[in-house]
Amino acid sequence: MTKKVTIKDLAVASGVSVTTVSQILNGKGDRFSEETKHRVAELQKKLGYVPDFNARNLIMKSARTIGVLVPDIANAFFSMFIKGIQDAAQKNKFVPIIFDANDTKQLQSYLEELIQRAADGLIIASATIDRNAVDTILKRNGIPYLLFDQNAVSEGDRVRIDDEAGGKMAANYLLEHNHERVTIVAPENPTENVSHRIGGFKQAFEKAGKPLSNEAFVYSEASKAGGYAAVSQVIAKRPSAVFTTSDEIAIGIYRGLQEQGYTIPEDISVIGYDDIDLATYITPKLTTVHQPAFEMGQAATELLINRLNNRQLPPQIRELPIRLVERESVRQLSK
Amino acid sequence: MTKKVTIKDLAVASGVSVTTVSQILNGKGDRFSEETKHRVAELQKKLGYVPDFNARNLIMKSARTIGVLVPDIANAFFSMFIKGIQDAAQKNKFVPIIFDANDTKQLQSYLEELIQRAADGLIIASATIDRNAVDTILKRNGIPYLLFDQNAVSEGDRVRIDDEAGGKMAANYLLEHNHERVTIVAPENPTENVSHRIGGFKQAFEKAGKPLSNEAFVYSEASKAGGYAAVSQVIAKRPSAVFTTSDEIAIGIYRGLQEQGYTIPEDISVIGYDDIDLATYITPKLTTVHQPAFEMGQAATELLINRLNNRQLPPQIRELPIRLVERESVRQLSK
Repeated sequence: MTKKVTIKDLAVASGVSVTTVSQILNGKGDRFSEETKHRVAELQKKLGYVPDFNARNLIMKSARTIGVLVPDIANAFFSMFIKGIQDAAQKNKFVPIIFDANDTKQLQSYLEELIQRAADGLIIASATIDRNAVDTILKRNGIPYLLFDQNAVSEGDRVRIDDEAGGKMAANYLLEHNHERVTIVAPENPTENVSHRIGGFKQAFEKAGKPLSNEAFVYSEASKAGGYAAVSQVIAKRPSAVFTTSDEIAIGIYRGLQEQGYTIPEDISVIGYDDIDLATYITPKLTTVHQPAFEMGQAATELLINRLNNRQLPPQIRELPIRLVERESVRQLSK
Repeated sequence: MTKKVTIKDLAVASGVSVTTVSQILNGKGDRFSEETKHRVAELQKKLGYVPDFNARNLIMKSARTIGVLVPDIANAFFSMFIKGIQDAAQKNKFVPIIFDANDTKQLQSYLEELIQRAADGLIIASATIDRNAVDTILKRNGIPYLLFDQNAVSEGDRVRIDDEAGGKMAANYLLEHNHERVTIVAPENPTENVSHRIGGFKQAFEKAGKPLSNEAFVYSEASKAGGYAAVSQVIAKRPSAVFTTSDEIAIGIYRGLQEQGYTIPEDISVIGYDDIDLATYITPKLTTVHQPAFEMGQAATELLINRLNNRQLPPQIRELPIRLVERESVRQLSK
């Protein structure tokens, strides 16, 4: 078994002292000859020596790690969200440790794992996380965190998305196209942000004098498979349009409707939420409410790192914009 | 700023010594009263104390981390691959640190980051990784690793997928359906495994007395966007069928063909590779070669952990099966 290459190995190979090598590698080698500096640099490459003195600092003082808990990395929204986290973390020399889980026990064990590994802070986007676990474990241990998908309950730092406005956008778009018989496909126990979407959607219909009853709802897992499984219930309600609280659900609805011989939007219109890249790769292209997933990940990471750098900061709020993206999945009905 | 809850805090709160608490928490507390054990357990919950003595061990001796480098977590194949890694890692009490990069400089910096953070081993599925970086940095530092997408070049432990057979399956399926005018959409600089797919595909056509010239190729990035961008070149070749080296490319081809008014498979047939979950959510459902992405991630992790537990093990090879999944995207042509 090979041993890790040490600074000593490099010093010996270079025929200079460890101190000399260390000073040269730290850019404090002015008093040494170019020739020496060059030799050390060359040998460092040749031997593949990676300095780990700051690794020790990192490990002992701060691991410069951010724990990230998402419900599902295979969900296109979260994979973009994670890319944003990685981008901002890397710029700040932090490393995200990403866990994918949506089950309370599992999340609890990941939480403890992250604390044992001395994560500096956490970004939690898994809604099923047990609030008490968060409060006792994180607060008691003084570990800063941002909660996602739970705007309402998360005090302190947060990235704000106006989900209520998003729901209204979708509803008003359907109303402008004269859709009144709508079905909402959403999770039975929605996260805070999703409840706001639904709330905004309902308010807009109420304001238009067309309040929606519970009859308008079909419950589904927030996934392609969930949407697909909900299709027979959707069809039974004979809607002219379907609003799904995520594009993943919409993609499942597409498949089910098309298998049942329905044409979108001629027979049934569909409007989604998120604007994942797939929205433009399905036929017809999905009209949906755009959320800036990548920027949300970046912002969450930046706020968390600000907090780590200064615990005394007043609560930070970063508001990010949403917008409706009109494509081909909603049909204009005549009055 | 709150401080991390320590074992001392718990001892003080419980009115017993740190040793007592430590013994109770380690299940060596038989000689203490049920009442004491109960009190300590209750207070541990109440205070939210997470033992970190083994964290120290982990951090000092082995961080029990596996570094994972993938080209793109937003690629459905890799998100399943990562889920497999997380599953096997968790069963073995390892934590995967996942980086998403497909650019040589970036990968190099992630590699060094991982070594500084004392990753025990690495799973590298980013093909653009610089071989020399791997050889010098990892080998010289004695860090075990598995290379993916590079079957040919990776010595030692590997998860084997018979990509050549996969390419043949796709080709023979097209030949059985009397497709001879085929276009292959693939990356210009394919990874080893993708070259084998293409090699197998070409061999099958040669064997059938219908060798494919370079005219049969259109180059594309291995992504939806790449496939979409390649469509005009594909159409110009007037093929009866298109073989893409990944489903992501196929999804881009679908969009482009449908935008140009072509119907799949009536006008042009498409056969993909990977069998990501999306393959069944697009219309028509994609006929493709199934790769067990989740199992590949699990296997890679298990082999790596075996290696970590016993450096002297002879090279381990785990072969995983592939199969053609027939759906709706290839049309039967008359002879």
